[in-house]
Amino acid sequence: MIKLSDRALELQFSPIRKLMPEATKAKERGIKIYHLNIGQPDIESPKIFLQKVKEFDEKVVVYEKSEGNSLLRSSLAEYYQRLDLNIKSEDIVVTTGGSEGLWMIFFILFNSGDECLTFDPTYTNYLTFSKLNGVNLRAVPTTLADNFNLPSMEIIKQAVTKKTKAILITNPSNPTGAVYSKKLLDELVEFCVRNNLYIISDETYREFVYSGPKAVSLLSYKQAEKLTVVVDSLSKRYSLCGARLGMLVSKNKEILEAANKIAQARLASGTIEQYAASFLLEVEPNYFETIKREYQHRRDVLIKGLEKIKGVKVSHPDGAFYLIAELPVKSAEDFCLFLLKEFEDKKETVMLAPAEGFYITPGLGKSQVRIAYVIESKALERACELISKGLTAYHNRA
Amino acid sequence: MIKLSDRALELQFSPIRKLMPEATKAKERGIKIYHLNIGQPDIESPKIFLQKVKEFDEKVVVYEKSEGNSLLRSSLAEYYQRLDLNIKSEDIVVTTGGSEGLWMIFFILFNSGDECLTFDPTYTNYLTFSKLNGVNLRAVPTTLADNFNLPSMEIIKQAVTKKTKAILITNPSNPTGAVYSKKLLDELVEFCVRNNLYIISDETYREFVYSGPKAVSLLSYKQAEKLTVVVDSLSKRYSLCGARLGMLVSKNKEILEAANKIAQARLASGTIEQYAASFLLEVEPNYFETIKREYQHRRDVLIKGLEKIKGVKVSHPDGAFYLIAELPVKSAEDFCLFLLKEFEDKKETVMLAPAEGFYITPGLGKSQVRIAYVIESKALERACELISKGLTAYHNRA
Repeated sequence: MIKLSDRALELQFSPIRKLMPEATKAKERGIKIYHLNIGQPDIESPKIFLQKVKEFDEKVVVYEKSEGNSLLRSSLAEYYQRLDLNIKSEDIVVTTGGSEGLWMIFFILFNSGDECLTFDPTYTNYLTFSKLNGVNLRAVPTTLADNFNLPSMEIIKQAVTKKTKAILITNPSNPTGAVYSKKLLDELVEFCVRNNLYIISDETYREFVYSGPKAVSLLSYKQAEKLTVVVDSLSKRYSLCGARLGMLVSKNKEILEAANKIAQARLASGTIEQYAASFLLEVEPNYFETIKREYQHRRDVLIKGLEKIKGVKVSHPDGAFYLIAELPVKSAEDFCLFLLKEFEDKKETVMLAPAEGFYITPGLGKSQVRIAYVIESKALERACELISKGLTAYHNRA
Repeated sequence: MIKLSDRALELQFSPIRKLMPEATKAKERGIKIYHLNIGQPDIESPKIFLQKVKEFDEKVVVYEKSEGNSLLRSSLAEYYQRLDLNIKSEDIVVTTGGSEGLWMIFFILFNSGDECLTFDPTYTNYLTFSKLNGVNLRAVPTTLADNFNLPSMEIIKQAVTKKTKAILITNPSNPTGAVYSKKLLDELVEFCVRNNLYIISDETYREFVYSGPKAVSLLSYKQAEKLTVVVDSLSKRYSLCGARLGMLVSKNKEILEAANKIAQARLASGTIEQYAASFLLEVEPNYFETIKREYQHRRDVLIKGLEKIKGVKVSHPDGAFYLIAELPVKSAEDFCLFLLKEFEDKKETVMLAPAEGFYITPGLGKSQVRIAYVIESKALERACELISKGLTAYHNRA
C-alpha cells in the first residue's frame, strides 16, 4: 500500500484529547468524570452574542470577507484602543480561531527548517502547527520550582542559533498560568530587536490575570512593532470556544498581506459568528471582573486542595486557568489512564491531561499533569479528593 | 529588515478576489456591479438551517468534537447512503469548509516535493493549498474546444512521473462546469489502482448537474476505496457558503486518523453551524430540483447572451455554475480591470474573474474569463449586454 507523507505519520494526537476514548468508555460504564483536562470554561457566553445569533436575519448565509467582517474588525480595533494600544482595523486579520492564526504565522515567517524558539512546557498544538509547516520548534525549559517564569536573557541567548527566526511566547501562559513581568518582557523585546528576531505573542488569556502584574501586550512596544505579531482569540475571553474566532494583529504590512492571501484561499471565517461577535464591545466591563473573581477563587481552592495531597507539588499561577502539578508517580500518563480505566469512587473519577505532551524537550514533565480550573469550586474540591484517593489506589495496586 | 518565508512571498492573491479593491472603488463612484466573478449563489439557504440557528439554546458556546458533531456526521453518512454509497459516520471528518479539507489532504498525502496531478484550468485555491504544503501541483491541459473534458488516459499517463502520488479531480468542475462520464472515470480509477496513485476527488458541486450524465462519486469504486479521499462541502449544496462546513470522506483509516490529528490541533469547527446543519436531511428533495431548474435556465440564458457577442467562444457546461468564455482580447485581466476602472453604461458595469489564474500551466487562459451564473437570469442578460458594450468600448479606446 502507498504510504502517507512522512510528516502525517509523525503527527500525534493532542495530549489534551487523546485519552478521550477511555473517558467515553468510563462514561458508558456509568462513571461521572470531572474534566480537568480541557480548557473549556463553564462560564456563560455573553448574552449579547447569543441574542445576535438569534437575530441573524439574512436569507442566504453568504461568504464573509476573507480578512473578516468590517464591523467586527473595527470593534476589535476599538477593543485594543481601550487597552491603550494603537491598533486599527487594517492591522487585523480575522482568523477561524486563534488556531488558524497560529498555523498561518508559522507558514508566513519560516522557511522549512528554520527554528522558532519557545519555552517548555508550551501549548501543545504549537508542535502540530510547526510540523504542518516544517518549522523546527525548540524550547528553553522553565521549571515548577521557579513558578515557570521566563529564564534569564543569558540562557535564552545561548539557545538562539543562526536558524532562529522568531521567539514565541504565550502570556499569560497555557499550560503553566505564568504571567511575565514587564521587566522581563522589556528585556526580551530588546533582545529580539537587537538580534532581528520576530516575536510571536499568543495573548489569548490576556484578561485572566488574578494577582501580580497585569499582562503586558507586546503590541505596546513601538520599537518592535515591525517584528511583532500577536495571535489572539475570542474563545476564552468571552467563553466562545465553539465560535471559532480569533485574529492576527500586527503593524507589519507584509505579514498581514501574506495572511490575507492565505485567508483568501480558505475563503472566509464563519459569517453568523462574525456578525454576532461584532456586538461584543457592548459586554459590560463587570463581565470580566465577575469571571476573574470566580477563576481566582477556583485557583485558590484548587491549589489548597492539591497541596493537601502528600507528594504533590503545585505551581502558583497568576493567570489563565491552568496549572501544572507534579504528582508522586513515575508516569503521569499511566496514572491518568488508571483514573479512567480502573479507578472510581462512588461512581466518580477525574480526567487530567498528562503534561509530557506539553514539553518539546524529550523526557521532561513525565510526572506532571496540566489541570484546568474551569469547573465550579465545589467540583474542584471533589476532584482533588478523587486525585488523592486515586493516588492511594494507584500505589496500592497489586 | 528580516524577510518573511520564501513561500509566503510566493503566494498570490486569489484571482477571484484580487480585483475586489477596484470593484470597491467603482461602487464608491456610484457604479452598480454585476458580480459574475464569485461563486456566491443568491439561492436562499434552507429554512430549517436558519431556524435551527435561531433555536440554538445553549448558554455556553462550547468546543464541538474535533472530528465533528456526532449528529451531523451520522446525518452526512445517511446523505451518502441515500446516494447508494456505503459511507458510515466513522468515514467522515467534518472540516471548516471544503477548503480546510483540501489543505489537510495536501499535507497528509504528500511529502514536500511530491507531485499531485490535476487538470487545467483548475480551482485556483488548489495552488495556494499545494504551496502551503510544498506540494508540486502539475496540470494536464483540457480545452474549450473539447468542452474541457478529461484528456485520454494516454495523455494522462505521459504526465505521470515517479514523483506523482495522487491525481486530483473536481467533478463537476470548477471553473469549467464539465461533468466527467462514468466511462472516463472508470478508466481513470483503473489507471490509479494499477499505478498505486491516490485519488483526491472534490465533489462540492455533486448536486448541480443539468444535462448529460449524473455526477459519479469516486466513493462508488470499491476497488479503489483505500486510495480515494473525497473533499465535500455544504457551501454550495445548501447555499451555505458562510457556514464554513465541509468534510473529508474516505475508507482509508490511516488518512482519517491523520486528518483527526490535524483536526485536534485546530480544536473544532463551529458549534452553532454544526448543530443547525445536522438537521439538513429534513430539506425536501424538491429544494434541489427547483434550484437545478433555476441554474439550468440561467446557464442557457448566459450561453445565449454570450454567444451573441462577436468573437466570444463559450464552453457548454453540464454542471456546477461556472463556465469559461474566451474573449476577443489579448489580456482578459486587462479587460476585467477596464470594466471596473474605466467602463460604465448607465452607471452599471460587470465584474469577471480572469481565467489565467485558474491555469497552472503558464501562458494558458490569458484571453479567458470564468463566469459564475449565480445571479438571476434578467441580471445575466444585462451582464452580457455590459460585456458586449464593454468589449466595444475597450477596442475603441484611444
